[in-house]
Amino acid sequence: MTYCVAMNLAQGLVFVSDSRTNAGVDNIAVFRKLHIFGTPGERLIVVQSAGNLATSQSVISTLRQRMGGDGPNLGNVENLFEAARLVGSTLREVVDHDENIGQNQGVDLGSSFLVGGQIGTEVPRLFNVYPQGNFIESCRDTPYFQIGESKYGKPIIDRAMSYATPLEQALRCALISFDSTIRSNLSVGMPLDLLVYREGSLEVPAGYRIQEGDAYFEGIRGQWGAGLRQLLGELPAPPGDYWH
Amino acid sequence: MTYCVAMNLAQGLVFVSDSRTNAGVDNIAVFRKLHIFGTPGERLIVVQSAGNLATSQSVISTLRQRMGGDGPNLGNVENLFEAARLVGSTLREVVDHDENIGQNQGVDLGSSFLVGGQIGTEVPRLFNVYPQGNFIESCRDTPYFQIGESKYGKPIIDRAMSYATPLEQALRCALISFDSTIRSNLSVGMPLDLLVYREGSLEVPAGYRIQEGDAYFEGIRGQWGAGLRQLLGELPAPPGDYWH
Repeated sequence: MTYCVAMNLAQGLVFVSDSRTNAGVDNIAVFRKLHIFGTPGERLIVVQSAGNLATSQSVISTLRQRMGGDGPNLGNVENLFEAARLVGSTLREVVDHDENIGQNQGVDLGSSFLVGGQIGTEVPRLFNVYPQGNFIESCRDTPYFQIGESKYGKPIIDRAMSYATPLEQALRCALISFDSTIRSNLSVGMPLDLLVYREGSLEVPAGYRIQEGDAYFEGIRGQWGAGLRQLLGELPAPPGDYWH
Repeated sequence: MTYCVAMNLAQGLVFVSDSRTNAGVDNIAVFRKLHIFGTPGERLIVVQSAGNLATSQSVISTLRQRMGGDGPNLGNVENLFEAARLVGSTLREVVDHDENIGQNQGVDLGSSFLVGGQIGTEVPRLFNVYPQGNFIESCRDTPYFQIGESKYGKPIIDRAMSYATPLEQALRCALISFDSTIRSNLSVGMPLDLLVYREGSLEVPAGYRIQEGDAYFEGIRGQWGAGLRQLLGELPAPPGDYWH
């Protein structure tokens, strides 16, 4: 499984991905799912992937291989909408190539992608590319997308985050969402890859990898768990009617 | 969908169920999923249901119909293990009856049940009955079960509850778990049915129904959401490395 979240907020973009892949619980490995494309001062495009690893790796490799070429690629598309279309069409190309050999033996070759970033003077944009290659775009009402194992980590994001949330707060919220998911689903695991982008900077950040045992992440995990238990203890007692 | 949770703790048992059933988002209704059997001073057996409504209703109706008869029934089984077996065998009987007519048109007739309570001098016990009719029992390491839409509401229970948690705190934790689930999944909805049982009392509580707009439930929803946002704001800022 996988868990990736991306947020498109007033101050910029936040991306966090786990790195665990598994083919059964007895076959676990670490693969990066957060991929960075860009030219400083001109464009940043972040692509996160979930689903069949052979498919998602082929899509990323194909996208990288075509950079600098003459055809449309992530280095020359004029806006993020075209970038999302390119990821979608590359996904279709890869799945078509692998499915049509008649040997896929019932394996689901589907992959999903989150594509976000900023190109030139356009505002930052964020897209959720479905396994079919079509996609939706985030908006102020729904400023974030998740792919992979999204359920465990969704309540905290829904409660604590909106379009106006500052980047730093949004990153903490995303990390808590990952902690909740990692605790409940063995197939989502450390390390975590993250990238924070400030709107208008047109920088291409290197991102950061949170390794197992990372002091900051361990600190907020502990503080969050203790805080939740205290918060629960402070809620008023249920009324007598509840107890008959 | 459905969400039911049951906890078997040092001080006794907590059961909470939602009441929404749906056949598509355009066909929603309210049906009780928490069913109480018992004789004050002798036994309490609570059965919660999830899955195919025709199946789960037939199982509950059959169990009720046989009460007071000569054969084994929930009024005369000697312990909770036998009660869980009876629910499992009744489930098999109902599914067998409905599946063998060759007209089920691919519909999943499966249902799951949580069966908990106390009979005589035996300690309180809690079972999770699978759609196959077999079952597992809770223990101190895993003192709770969920059926139906369990993921959204699991992190708070995993973080905040253990076997030693007092009943009142456990009930608050269960209600927060329901709030998280209801916010994220339209197919889980109000009203909520709950029952709290104190170990050794051998009472048969009537339980309580939390209706939409219930003052206590609305109060803790609001306090919890505000508390979470405050807690998130109090977490330390991510270190500089996270931001390059």
